[in-house]
Amino acid sequence: MSTHDNVLRVGMVGYAFMGAAHSQAWRTVNRVYDLPAQVRMALVCGRDEPKVAEAAARLGWDGHTTDWRRLVESDEIDVVDICTPGDSHCEIALAALAAGKHVLCEKPLANTVEEARQMTAAAARARTAGVRAMCGFNYRRVPAVTLMRRLVADGRLGEIRHVRAVYLQDWIVDPQFPLVWRLQKDRAGSGALGDIGAHIIDLTQYVTGQLITGVSAVTETFVKERPLPAGSSGLAAQADGNGRATGPVTVDDAAVFVARLDGGALATYEATRFATGRKNALRVEINGSKGSVVFDLERLNELEFLDATRPSAEQGFSRILVTEPEHPYLSAWWPPGHIIGYEHSFTHQMRDFVEAVATGVDPTPSFADALQVQLVLDAVTRSAERAAWTEVEPALAELAA
Amino acid sequence: MSTHDNVLRVGMVGYAFMGAAHSQAWRTVNRVYDLPAQVRMALVCGRDEPKVAEAAARLGWDGHTTDWRRLVESDEIDVVDICTPGDSHCEIALAALAAGKHVLCEKPLANTVEEARQMTAAAARARTAGVRAMCGFNYRRVPAVTLMRRLVADGRLGEIRHVRAVYLQDWIVDPQFPLVWRLQKDRAGSGALGDIGAHIIDLTQYVTGQLITGVSAVTETFVKERPLPAGSSGLAAQADGNGRATGPVTVDDAAVFVARLDGGALATYEATRFATGRKNALRVEINGSKGSVVFDLERLNELEFLDATRPSAEQGFSRILVTEPEHPYLSAWWPPGHIIGYEHSFTHQMRDFVEAVATGVDPTPSFADALQVQLVLDAVTRSAERAAWTEVEPALAELAA
Amino acid sequence: MSTHDNVLRVGMVGYAFMGAAHSQAWRTVNRVYDLPAQVRMALVCGRDEPKVAEAAARLGWDGHTTDWRRLVESDEIDVVDICTPGDSHCEIALAALAAGKHVLCEKPLANTVEEARQMTAAAARARTAGVRAMCGFNYRRVPAVTLMRRLVADGRLGEIRHVRAVYLQDWIVDPQFPLVWRLQKDRAGSGALGDIGAHIIDLTQYVTGQLITGVSAVTETFVKERPLPAGSSGLAAQADGNGRATGPVTVDDAAVFVARLDGGALATYEATRFATGRKNALRVEINGSKGSVVFDLERLNELEFLDATRPSAEQGFSRILVTEPEHPYLSAWWPPGHIIGYEHSFTHQMRDFVEAVATGVDPTPSFADALQVQLVLDAVTRSAERAAWTEVEPALAELAA
Amino acid sequence: MSTHDNVLRVGMVGYAFMGAAHSQAWRTVNRVYDLPAQVRMALVCGRDEPKVAEAAARLGWDGHTTDWRRLVESDEIDVVDICTPGDSHCEIALAALAAGKHVLCEKPLANTVEEARQMTAAAARARTAGVRAMCGFNYRRVPAVTLMRRLVADGRLGEIRHVRAVYLQDWIVDPQFPLVWRLQKDRAGSGALGDIGAHIIDLTQYVTGQLITGVSAVTETFVKERPLPAGSSGLAAQADGNGRATGPVTVDDAAVFVARLDGGALATYEATRFATGRKNALRVEINGSKGSVVFDLERLNELEFLDATRPSAEQGFSRILVTEPEHPYLSAWWPPGHIIGYEHSFTHQMRDFVEAVATGVDPTPSFADALQVQLVLDAVTRSAERAAWTEVEPALAELAA
Repeated sequence: MSTHDNVLRVGMVGYAFMGAAHSQAWRTVNRVYDLPAQVRMALVCGRDEPKVAEAAARLGWDGHTTDWRRLVESDEIDVVDICTPGDSHCEIALAALAAGKHVLCEKPLANTVEEARQMTAAAARARTAGVRAMCGFNYRRVPAVTLMRRLVADGRLGEIRHVRAVYLQDWIVDPQFPLVWRLQKDRAGSGALGDIGAHIIDLTQYVTGQLITGVSAVTETFVKERPLPAGSSGLAAQADGNGRATGPVTVDDAAVFVARLDGGALATYEATRFATGRKNALRVEINGSKGSVVFDLERLNELEFLDATRPSAEQGFSRILVTEPEHPYLSAWWPPGHIIGYEHSFTHQMRDFVEAVATGVDPTPSFADALQVQLVLDAVTRSAERAAWTEVEPALAELAA
Repeated sequence: MSTHDNVLRVGMVGYAFMGAAHSQAWRTVNRVYDLPAQVRMALVCGRDEPKVAEAAARLGWDGHTTDWRRLVESDEIDVVDICTPGDSHCEIALAALAAGKHVLCEKPLANTVEEARQMTAAAARARTAGVRAMCGFNYRRVPAVTLMRRLVADGRLGEIRHVRAVYLQDWIVDPQFPLVWRLQKDRAGSGALGDIGAHIIDLTQYVTGQLITGVSAVTETFVKERPLPAGSSGLAAQADGNGRATGPVTVDDAAVFVARLDGGALATYEATRFATGRKNALRVEINGSKGSVVFDLERLNELEFLDATRPSAEQGFSRILVTEPEHPYLSAWWPPGHIIGYEHSFTHQMRDFVEAVATGVDPTPSFADALQVQLVLDAVTRSAERAAWTEVEPALAELAA
Repeated sequence: MSTHDNVLRVGMVGYAFMGAAHSQAWRTVNRVYDLPAQVRMALVCGRDEPKVAEAAARLGWDGHTTDWRRLVESDEIDVVDICTPGDSHCEIALAALAAGKHVLCEKPLANTVEEARQMTAAAARARTAGVRAMCGFNYRRVPAVTLMRRLVADGRLGEIRHVRAVYLQDWIVDPQFPLVWRLQKDRAGSGALGDIGAHIIDLTQYVTGQLITGVSAVTETFVKERPLPAGSSGLAAQADGNGRATGPVTVDDAAVFVARLDGGALATYEATRFATGRKNALRVEINGSKGSVVFDLERLNELEFLDATRPSAEQGFSRILVTEPEHPYLSAWWPPGHIIGYEHSFTHQMRDFVEAVATGVDPTPSFADALQVQLVLDAVTRSAERAAWTEVEPALAELAA
Repeated sequence: MSTHDNVLRVGMVGYAFMGAAHSQAWRTVNRVYDLPAQVRMALVCGRDEPKVAEAAARLGWDGHTTDWRRLVESDEIDVVDICTPGDSHCEIALAALAAGKHVLCEKPLANTVEEARQMTAAAARARTAGVRAMCGFNYRRVPAVTLMRRLVADGRLGEIRHVRAVYLQDWIVDPQFPLVWRLQKDRAGSGALGDIGAHIIDLTQYVTGQLITGVSAVTETFVKERPLPAGSSGLAAQADGNGRATGPVTVDDAAVFVARLDGGALATYEATRFATGRKNALRVEINGSKGSVVFDLERLNELEFLDATRPSAEQGFSRILVTEPEHPYLSAWWPPGHIIGYEHSFTHQMRDFVEAVATGVDPTPSFADALQVQLVLDAVTRSAERAAWTEVEPALAELAA
């Protein structure tokens, strides 16, 4: 470990939504968990100096910079936490790994398979020097999700037959919602698919222990032109009927696909930003030969579990309130029934990351895991274009973590 | 109307599960609703004389027969109610329509598109003589479903963007469950797809007022060989490890598909008999630009409705208990909050059928409506075989009701 | 048994809401269950000749009368089914028992303890001649309620510590709702207390197998004066601001009380017609040392059961869909997941009543059971008047069934 | 304000469950909210030096002490945060107020009415010198609770008719659970009543804007003797059958009561630690003439609201996901649908406390508000002893905040 005196000095690139969530987690993790290293929130980076200075003060970072290369190369930094849009993940991660820094990179790993392959190869090389890399699929650390994984791994569901996963949001239903970066392909890579679809792909593969092998997909952009955001520039603008500048939406609003998993299960997936009334509805149901589980991120402290080996007259989906000390991550928090929130998944992620780095083991999900998600995203995109069943391209064996 | 003295004399073919449900409805409909005709439960038909005699006595039919042709041609019958497996629907319906009898035929309309086309053509011809034909997609008459249709038709959901529909059961998860007729292609036409998938296809098309135009599908048979039922014959039997005779499952256990609707919506569908713990979970969610609805057949007295035109701080899915006198079909039943059950959908169906026949209008869903469902089922099957997006074949215009 | 040729000839007094529900059940019971006797719907009685004639035709009774004494004394009647308001229960029941007729009497058994004592004594006398009497607490025969009872009786809840029971309705929230008979003490005995409070008293005593020993109660009449119903007469009318005739509400709108049960449990009860938005919300939760159960009449096909002997990490309230063949009453109905409704509780009640009468055993709840409920209602009323803890008066031992 | 350079230096007494929750909130509040003062976590106090030193390091306090008087009197402290058991609240608060320190005192305010009166009088005196005092009924700051209050205050519920409130836990169902301080009257004042009953009393009075005027109560101690905790001393110990030392439980395990509110509503309350399977189930339903609300602390991001002014066919309880920027406290947190947890209520509490102190206004709930809760607790205890309706004693007018 390149920590000094059991301190991990973190440098974070990006300070918007994800940056705020990560900051809360870095700040909290040592207050809740006994860990072999102490986190120091050393440096935060952003392009706009006054804003990043304000963010550093508010979020509690010791310093700030507008030059991510300086952050990445600084001797005062042990960990680089990448919270930027997807188009800069690859460049920053490659530089950080080359500089011998441990990397935590937000999901999706990259905007393209090619970038993800480069990053995975770089992580594999860096690993030989004891440098660790992890991708931030934080929902794996929601206790109910970890519990689902445990139930499947313990054989409690038997043979998995069905996965149905949706991630439903509604924040762009209004056609007057502006053309933010998440709606631009060059920045975001894809739309609902990569932003939230990536989460349900990773989560279901993680929970089932199975990989998606092929898909049939349809994608749609319901609103094809949107007003430019105030202060935007560099976009090919048109004018709408009211004379306002508009630009084309270049990503999907929604993506739906059916899939097969390598363990024999059938699956359906849906990622959309047009599910009116659904705010953050990541919902997963998994049916196996011996039982089923149901999870809903809007009620993330709960897991429904049906144990089909119980007597028929007593079977039912049990609403487990996942707040007991026996549950993953929870012995350090509050008494049973005192629920936790969205942000706690990041604290749990930082807990495992810090522990892995400090003890010299590889954190998960690895970049190779995240590359596999990227390959599924790519297969979805190609299937939608080809209007045909499309196999997921294999990751090269030498890249596997 | 071919009724005598405002009496509709019904002859029912088949007396198993569907026959019992229909009997309960025929017996009840005039006790609850004021209708222009009285139903007489005249004759029931089955192949096994002692059993059909017992059924007639128990279910309350005046007479019984083992010869469906005699029933269909009898001068004492005005309505033929077809409750047999799908492989006999076409022959019986054609004969009944030819004999000038009104026909109520269980769903799916037929086992093949070709049969459904013949039946639809026959219904169109018979219609010119005042003979009525209807297909028994009874869930259209669940009050909450009818209310959903009303909300969509009134524009309360705005433009429909998403349909997600599942019909989940689990009665054949056990590989020792025997090879009953519903698992044999020659009798049932298809498996989960035609049995329960047909319901969600019809229901969502009915509620949205849109038709499915194309699909990408995957189907699966998880358990490929099953024990023969006691007393079965005529099946190509093999023997399993315990020396018991087994036979091949020739239908799908599960079918999943993505689809487009002609109004621009994306949809996902899943029909399965392997969703452990789900007994009769027909669940539909529809998202529009102005609102959303959610329905679950296991809680059929409830409808969730989100009205996105309400102030943001008050928006939420409202659990409407669909038991008010203002709700469809309910003014004749119990006071608010006193729930109804599965069987009531049949009573409502008989109510509308009797009224239509007695007043000389066409009941819905027509055979043409049911043919359209059959065409979707066919597209699903072909898509799964071809591993490609498959357009739904159009019904010929001259057959449209 | 006084049946002839295994036929039970039923005469029903009253044909309004309860009469319609009972008729549906009498009509259905032999169609669903194999029973040792066949029900004949022989005679229905009401005060208004044209109306009762219409009701007889619609509900399917062979004959009608306006003279309940004629019905009660008729040689053509074996069973008298009393569906009138509470003020006539006693007189009719006493006459029927005296005439040797089996009696099924709607709840609450009577309007006063004195009447209930008379009826219970009469039932005890009649019993020696093989005449059976039962009170219509139909919710005991909701399958989920019967299942709750079974779980408690099997020791699955351990020692009962808490009962919380509410019965919430809202049909008189509007102060312009008229002064119907249920709001008049001389007709109804009491308001929410006797009408719906009686149900939760009986249900919780039945399920726990424990009796309420004392109560502290508060009752309230929120709207003290209401418009007279159209066509009403004989009420001491006043006139409101709009010149409409009004009269005083002489019963409680709501009653709340805490109680102790003889097995050591603490309990809370609430019966109200002013719970805006609650239509028929009979909800019961019972906590024991080993488990808990929750029931809601608006979702009467479901029972929540928590088994505290399960591993802590898996404990949760299981939503049992009470539609399996192993569940009470359900093997005769539809496949799993196909739900039943409110009216089915009456069919189940008639099933057990017919079987008891036909085989010469006493049906439950007996008049003595119903007297005990009346004694609790009386204690509640006295406690509210005295503003003090009030013991439930014991039923005399010689009356116990 | 006695802050220096817009810094509020906090000294916290006690560092167990409540101390950890408060620490997390003090640490977070300035990271999330823009406030007129910055919190400094200056000093934490506990009796055991090594333990408090460890707690200070872990929870992030600058210093620690074992002498609460030193903390209270220190010139380096502006705010005293009291997180100790109830028996020391009065002494510490009086000393802190006398020393001119702002006080945040955990609930219940005190173990007796007499103490609460002294504290309220002291707060009233200190207030004249600009010293602020607040009691920590943190659930007022759960956004859904604040939203309930807003709906009632805006008249959306109309006239309040019913309150039903329970607070259900189950952590001492096991009779072998040891005799911790919360089960000893001299330390805790009362059992479930003061610990969790106090919360529902305060919450419902806050939300309705009405005060409880009288109660009829029953309390119970189901398990009367428990094993002494390891290392306990000073308790009058007996020995159980296994030779283990046991002692008497001197507080209530459960308390149930009916009540009247000064605006005319009827209410039921239940606080228990014996509701098997209920971990932290604070549930409140309020029915008014125009609408109803329902809240459950185990799903604290949700509020159910029924608006009875909506058309009858569309009425239903709406599940509002209280995570919108328009909702109380939420614009500073995550995007809609990203839920918050139990601990956030403390952050919100600290936000309002800091703002009140920094801007020189009185925070709520005041000590006078908390005294009123204490008077209700006292009436409940007396009612249970007297077995009679008991009026809540009025707070003296001169003490009102």
